[in-house]
Amino acid sequence: MSAAMNFRNCGSVLVTGASRGLGLQMVDSLATGGFSPGKIIATSRNPASTQKLQELADNHPCIHIITLDVLDQESIEKCVEEVDQLVQEEGLNCLINNAGINVVADFHTVTAEKMIENFHTNAVAPLMITKAFLPLLKRAASRGAGGAGSMGIQRAAVINMTSLLGSVELNWGERANTFKWYPYRTSKTALNMVSRCMAVDLEPEGILCMAIHPGWVRTDMGGSEAPLSSEESVASVLSVIGGLTEKDHGSFLNYTGETLPW
Amino acid sequence: MSAAMNFRNCGSVLVTGASRGLGLQMVDSLATGGFSPGKIIATSRNPASTQKLQELADNHPCIHIITLDVLDQESIEKCVEEVDQLVQEEGLNCLINNAGINVVADFHTVTAEKMIENFHTNAVAPLMITKAFLPLLKRAASRGAGGAGSMGIQRAAVINMTSLLGSVELNWGERANTFKWYPYRTSKTALNMVSRCMAVDLEPEGILCMAIHPGWVRTDMGGSEAPLSSEESVASVLSVIGGLTEKDHGSFLNYTGETLPW
Repeated sequence: MSAAMNFRNCGSVLVTGASRGLGLQMVDSLATGGFSPGKIIATSRNPASTQKLQELADNHPCIHIITLDVLDQESIEKCVEEVDQLVQEEGLNCLINNAGINVVADFHTVTAEKMIENFHTNAVAPLMITKAFLPLLKRAASRGAGGAGSMGIQRAAVINMTSLLGSVELNWGERANTFKWYPYRTSKTALNMVSRCMAVDLEPEGILCMAIHPGWVRTDMGGSEAPLSSEESVASVLSVIGGLTEKDHGSFLNYTGETLPW
Repeated sequence: MSAAMNFRNCGSVLVTGASRGLGLQMVDSLATGGFSPGKIIATSRNPASTQKLQELADNHPCIHIITLDVLDQESIEKCVEEVDQLVQEEGLNCLINNAGINVVADFHTVTAEKMIENFHTNAVAPLMITKAFLPLLKRAASRGAGGAGSMGIQRAAVINMTSLLGSVELNWGERANTFKWYPYRTSKTALNMVSRCMAVDLEPEGILCMAIHPGWVRTDMGGSEAPLSSEESVASVLSVIGGLTEKDHGSFLNYTGETLPW
């Protein structure tokens, strides 16, 4: 069974930051691959202005677009209510915290404001969103509890889109001199700790939680020199996500499925 | 030669958050151990209200108390000017970023504000302070460049007081279930990345940069059940700091001198 096939057993997936880049590609690949989950919930700060996502949704009734400003607690709570109406007693199976920004600044240009802005969007927002969706994730997890208590997206999972640049271990030598992005690197390191903390707390609920690096991708954020297309990255990422089991709980994986050092 | 002796070759040490806890103990141990560095600069947000530090300074003319609110960029810059007047052409040899807070919150009580508050004080402030002191650190480093380009506190060093609780790797199993402090853990993980980023950027200047865990200490923050006294912790921490060399650049060490996993 191909990993993508695993999404057949996943009733609902929510992807944040779905208006462009990897988020849009995830929604596209999930909807058009012939192996769609039941419901694809695509969130965006301002859905009305994102034509591509609207077109996708027009062609695929399984896609539901919901407004979500990840920095706004009221917006998060309103989004949860709308998703609750949509998934009802089935709960939410898979939350993909994908929305993120890159506030580029090196040692000389970095400011406290830039550090906090990137930290808020990339590390704090996934935490606040996961907290808010906990009742829906628990509902999905409890329905899937029959299957020998197994973990995975067929039951309930929180996937945090992180970056290799958040690895403290790998931030050394030649690699470290290429991307001296203090706010981005620090925000992704922080997200990795948030992901690990949440894994500890979500484990008793049977909810899988992990962090995955999508590779260096040709998006607005990755730039035109990146080696991977969005399609290639997302095909691999969805394959890994589709195949996650208990052994991946609390992990930091590359898009290839290999474990990365913290 | 005992490690503490190494401070004899260190012209000046600055300790942030010196009004209580480990910071106060560091100033005390440096001043009273018979192996003082030339100048001990103790910073505090409100020195007038910290009687113990004042008493120490009254008895030890090598201690200089300077006001510093680590969250306030103007205060940081004013502090740099005052330290500049004090150290003059010798520059600053050793900056110890010790000021820190613990905003206790678990998964259910954590808020965005609590995450950002702890991140700002524990991870962003050390970065902004190090940036501001860079000219003084470079001055000290360039004066010490004769000694085969060696690194250490006899030349110039930035020491970031971090925590084992910032280790993502160690945040698993029994240990993870004891201290579910999202804001504190995340802030220290972020500080570790900041420390590593700064190590990359300070290396060409000959400035050593590393992060050290002081152990679990009986302070206001550590509580009364902690196994180590302030004296024990600081004696060990100063011993490690005094003996730092090139091989420790960019490292994450325990107070015992052992390497910790990120």
